[in-house]
Amino acid sequence: MEVVNHQFRLAARPVGMVGSEHFDYVEEPVPDLKDGEVLVKVLYISLDPAMRGWMNEGRSYIPPVALGEVMRAGTVGRVVESKGQKLAVGDHVSGWLGVQEYAVCEENAVFKVNTDAVALPTHLGALGMPGMTAYFGLLEVGRPKQGETVVVSGAAGAVGSVVGQIAKLKGCRAVGIAGGPEKCGWIVEELGFDAAIDYKSEDVGAALKQHCPAGVDVYFDNVGGEILEAVLARLARGARVVICGAISQYNNIDSMRGPSNYMSLLVNRARMEGFVVMDYTARYPEASREMAGWIADGRLVAREDVIEGFERFPDALAKLFRGENVGKLVLKVADE
Amino acid sequence: MEVVNHQFRLAARPVGMVGSEHFDYVEEPVPDLKDGEVLVKVLYISLDPAMRGWMNEGRSYIPPVALGEVMRAGTVGRVVESKGQKLAVGDHVSGWLGVQEYAVCEENAVFKVNTDAVALPTHLGALGMPGMTAYFGLLEVGRPKQGETVVVSGAAGAVGSVVGQIAKLKGCRAVGIAGGPEKCGWIVEELGFDAAIDYKSEDVGAALKQHCPAGVDVYFDNVGGEILEAVLARLARGARVVICGAISQYNNIDSMRGPSNYMSLLVNRARMEGFVVMDYTARYPEASREMAGWIADGRLVAREDVIEGFERFPDALAKLFRGENVGKLVLKVADE
Repeated sequence: MEVVNHQFRLAARPVGMVGSEHFDYVEEPVPDLKDGEVLVKVLYISLDPAMRGWMNEGRSYIPPVALGEVMRAGTVGRVVESKGQKLAVGDHVSGWLGVQEYAVCEENAVFKVNTDAVALPTHLGALGMPGMTAYFGLLEVGRPKQGETVVVSGAAGAVGSVVGQIAKLKGCRAVGIAGGPEKCGWIVEELGFDAAIDYKSEDVGAALKQHCPAGVDVYFDNVGGEILEAVLARLARGARVVICGAISQYNNIDSMRGPSNYMSLLVNRARMEGFVVMDYTARYPEASREMAGWIADGRLVAREDVIEGFERFPDALAKLFRGENVGKLVLKVADE
Repeated sequence: MEVVNHQFRLAARPVGMVGSEHFDYVEEPVPDLKDGEVLVKVLYISLDPAMRGWMNEGRSYIPPVALGEVMRAGTVGRVVESKGQKLAVGDHVSGWLGVQEYAVCEENAVFKVNTDAVALPTHLGALGMPGMTAYFGLLEVGRPKQGETVVVSGAAGAVGSVVGQIAKLKGCRAVGIAGGPEKCGWIVEELGFDAAIDYKSEDVGAALKQHCPAGVDVYFDNVGGEILEAVLARLARGARVVICGAISQYNNIDSMRGPSNYMSLLVNRARMEGFVVMDYTARYPEASREMAGWIADGRLVAREDVIEGFERFPDALAKLFRGENVGKLVLKVADE
């Protein structure tokens, strides 16, 4: 029986907000397997802020998605056919299979995940790229010391929610910046942040002054823009600003906004440093084991915000940039 | 005989470009000395970009100059009267004596300088705060490795000219950005920079591409603005951007301009770090000894741009911000 595959392929490079007009919805048959390949039925697709950058032309840390190419995305799925040596039908795997219902790939292009301990979509969140980003960005770049104050923006998102929890595990004060009472309530009550700042209803500068009386030692920035400027104005001496993302700026039609008060780095002898999580690939297994342990112990809460229905991909991506998700946003393609 | 002192006191906080209207020229008698004090005849006054910041209200790394206060400045001079234990009449000293012809101070507020080896104004330049700024900013914050490419802006200025020369001494490729053919010629022909980029007549981005084919490993930024953006666009992986100053922005009427492409830090796993030279005060003697040795060996060229006449202070300061000086700008107040 021929398997029919549906895909979203990049049709146009967005200027400003991303939408369904930037993708072609395509139907095509799944090709036959060659030796060493597997056919994976995609079950969940990861929706990540970085996807917006991959849609732009130009030099970055990885090449952009080409026009006409299946949109790049992290996925988890189940092997439904195997001509490989290591993977068998029924195995659950994770990999960069893109926005499609089925994918044929070399068996080494994906890795097997264990679904006994943690739920499958968590492998796209706390144990996936967002979790690795939080772990290495905070611990290797931010390097918080016990007793320091760690502020994170996008604090109810896939990365930010993990950053704040790891900060607490390391004995820091964790302050999250998020939009709206639901997110702010969740990070304090469920995740154990010390304080939340609702940027939609509060003066972020005044709230930082209140919640970080000794200044901000580590700032993990997912958003850029005005919030980055507000935190730069409250840095403690020797602060570390971890540049992870700038979601507030990705869909700007005009050029990006740079932090006009970056000279705060001078006054406070502070540094601002970027990183790319893929540089830590060799250490993912170590981090993943530690994080899985924290999840099992109940010390790390992993939450996914699941949207069902493959065809809703463009809307789901737009939802991400509107900041409507709580926890890791994933698209459910099919039942496990 | 009563000594008459002239001073420039801060009269108004500038908005935009600094000028004579922001200072009061005052005449007053020199007070009598108390035990432990010395009277210093100021011979040279240092003109530094940082002075513009000290004229602004608000929190910074040191308090602003108060309205009515003698304008803060580094100086070198000669002791003409002493009630101290350590300093004698005729000693040459350096210290923060401000924009005035004479100063009474505790003898411990100044330190004796040796004028045998290097000329007196050099104690305000290569062996003064600018030299210390270049030394510690480059070596402790930029941490260049042999063979790396170091770019410095304000390259014909007091700090930049020393940064490039130390980079060469450490086995790096040194590329300077400066304004006009005289400055660019000087840093290449006299100071030994590998290349100069004239930002007034060249496309800085294209010239960086040409002169830094493997990207920029260390950028020592004295200017901010468009030049900072041009260099951020050419960073090598793992680059260090040393934030020393932003002279292009200090006299802006509107708010500072932040680097709109700061996300280059992420793509290139780079960091941008500020520092304050005063944090290294304890290590000045060590650096000063090493730099004096380099000057004596002819491996470090120290050049001062001397303006004569105390009353020309406001014009001299404006000249600095118009970028007209080559080497360290100093105001000569009186003959040695």
